[in-house]
Amino acid sequence: MTHVLRIAVIGSGAFGTALSAVIAQTGKAHVLLVGRDQALIEDLARQRVHEAALPGITLPESLAFSARPDAVADADIVLFAMPSQAQLSAAEVYGPHLKPAAPIVICAKGIEKQTSRLLTDVLESVLPNHPIAMLSGPGFAADIAKGLPTAMAIAAADLAIADYLARSISGQTFRLYASDDRVGVQLGGALKNVLAIACGIVEGMGLGDSARAALIARGLAEMSRLVEATGGRADTVRGLSGLGDLVLTATSHQSRNLRFGIALGRGSALSTQHGGLVEGAFAAAVAARLAEGYKIEMPITQAVAAIIDGRLDIPTAIAQLMSRPITTE
Amino acid sequence: MTHVLRIAVIGSGAFGTALSAVIAQTGKAHVLLVGRDQALIEDLARQRVHEAALPGITLPESLAFSARPDAVADADIVLFAMPSQAQLSAAEVYGPHLKPAAPIVICAKGIEKQTSRLLTDVLESVLPNHPIAMLSGPGFAADIAKGLPTAMAIAAADLAIADYLARSISGQTFRLYASDDRVGVQLGGALKNVLAIACGIVEGMGLGDSARAALIARGLAEMSRLVEATGGRADTVRGLSGLGDLVLTATSHQSRNLRFGIALGRGSALSTQHGGLVEGAFAAAVAARLAEGYKIEMPITQAVAAIIDGRLDIPTAIAQLMSRPITTE
Repeated sequence: MTHVLRIAVIGSGAFGTALSAVIAQTGKAHVLLVGRDQALIEDLARQRVHEAALPGITLPESLAFSARPDAVADADIVLFAMPSQAQLSAAEVYGPHLKPAAPIVICAKGIEKQTSRLLTDVLESVLPNHPIAMLSGPGFAADIAKGLPTAMAIAAADLAIADYLARSISGQTFRLYASDDRVGVQLGGALKNVLAIACGIVEGMGLGDSARAALIARGLAEMSRLVEATGGRADTVRGLSGLGDLVLTATSHQSRNLRFGIALGRGSALSTQHGGLVEGAFAAAVAARLAEGYKIEMPITQAVAAIIDGRLDIPTAIAQLMSRPITTE
Repeated sequence: MTHVLRIAVIGSGAFGTALSAVIAQTGKAHVLLVGRDQALIEDLARQRVHEAALPGITLPESLAFSARPDAVADADIVLFAMPSQAQLSAAEVYGPHLKPAAPIVICAKGIEKQTSRLLTDVLESVLPNHPIAMLSGPGFAADIAKGLPTAMAIAAADLAIADYLARSISGQTFRLYASDDRVGVQLGGALKNVLAIACGIVEGMGLGDSARAALIARGLAEMSRLVEATGGRADTVRGLSGLGDLVLTATSHQSRNLRFGIALGRGSALSTQHGGLVEGAFAAAVAARLAEGYKIEMPITQAVAAIIDGRLDIPTAIAQLMSRPITTE
């Protein structure tokens, strides 16, 4: 008898539930969704629908559920699908129960707030005997769960492991592309939120679609420069996890970062206070600091950081961006 | 007395009128708008508004008008802002009147239909003594004319000339970035229309924003491969004239290519007949042929070409795209 792959997805929010459903649907693996909320997990197992997170979407019969941390013990691959700020404590809770050397896939956006460290570094320090991979890219939970075509990037330090994970998790509708650039995939996922805020400002001020398109193209050039300086590859930024996710975030009103930018652009008085809740506001500050340290020009990112800090008003920021010297592309 | 630069814009459609207005607004040059339609030109000179093309937008007082071909005779820079298929005949009509060695800037999308040649090659063969530059990127005429922030690329064989043109034409709201990659700028402008059709198909079929974002990221990789094979640079494709224009075309319903794709995706019976009118339908056939010749993988472009030809139905095309082997990014 051949061994059937066992995959555990930890995190019963929208993204974790969507991932567990789409992987179970492939029929290639036994999939277990693990969450801390016993009542919710029992409810999901009974109803086969997550009304709060993915209303109207039926979860496959083959998907198993558990609220016990030791349920992950026989998983060959473990997906960490809780929010960025909960990844470290999850590693501490579930770490002792993991199968030796089982790969862990972080399914959250890139930077840990308290330490400004990459999530892969954070988890590697707690779970040094497990390969730590990162899944990122343009995928709304609802689109994934509905079986609409979606494609994302999965990065591991070892390309062979990334490739193994991509083949194990991908199905007919949900496709993963393997990469060995964990820095690029994580930074791209974080930096695109800064540009989504900038796109929101442009939209909120009514500056037009042409301005937004130019901002995305020039913003991508900025992102590439910073990722290269920090040891990632510019090519990664131009792929699914950078550009792809940027396009999704900057053009879909489902994004909190975009909506925050729109409020700023409209001059909403409260909006800067809300910046604390928005990933891109935090990423802007980190990126602007890094750009200064590496002496990299990131005029858009630096303007967004200064606007959120209240050091720069939006009309002045735009005038400055538009009066920079004419240059080559 | 210093010589004040004279710029002539030929073509009194929306784009030519918008360019002439925004350049005149800078106050750096005497700008002349030249068109063949005597009645329209007289009307524009009197009303200072182009109701048919740019309703409600007032043209600057300093803008001059002429319907005479010899009016271009003292222009230091000449913008060819007529449609692609009219560029060759314009070169024949206006060529004899041009100031010796005056740079010509093509302001139209990339490929001549009858010969499948790049427009810069077409014009260079007719006007061998003039530097031929290409202006392309994400700029809707109305956004440019309204003075909203816009950024585009301008490419010449000699970077010093591209730089001179960028500085001469750019103003506070309309910014040009110089490049010496004419092949990349032109092919990017043509190929993005193919991907806009693909994005339209995805939208018409209701496949979701995630699918569209992935398509843009993977499509950009395809475009880069073809541009590199034909002597352009991948970096150009990732800039304003490729990615920037792609984002604008694929996310704004002002694009004919996108609307054509949406009709295809909805199964509109007539829509393939309308393909003849859409730039991207023509570009898809050319690009698919080139990809075959260079042995480059362009699965999205090839699928679009086959769908328009009636050789492939859309559900089969999507199934094929989604069942390609899992690969690295």
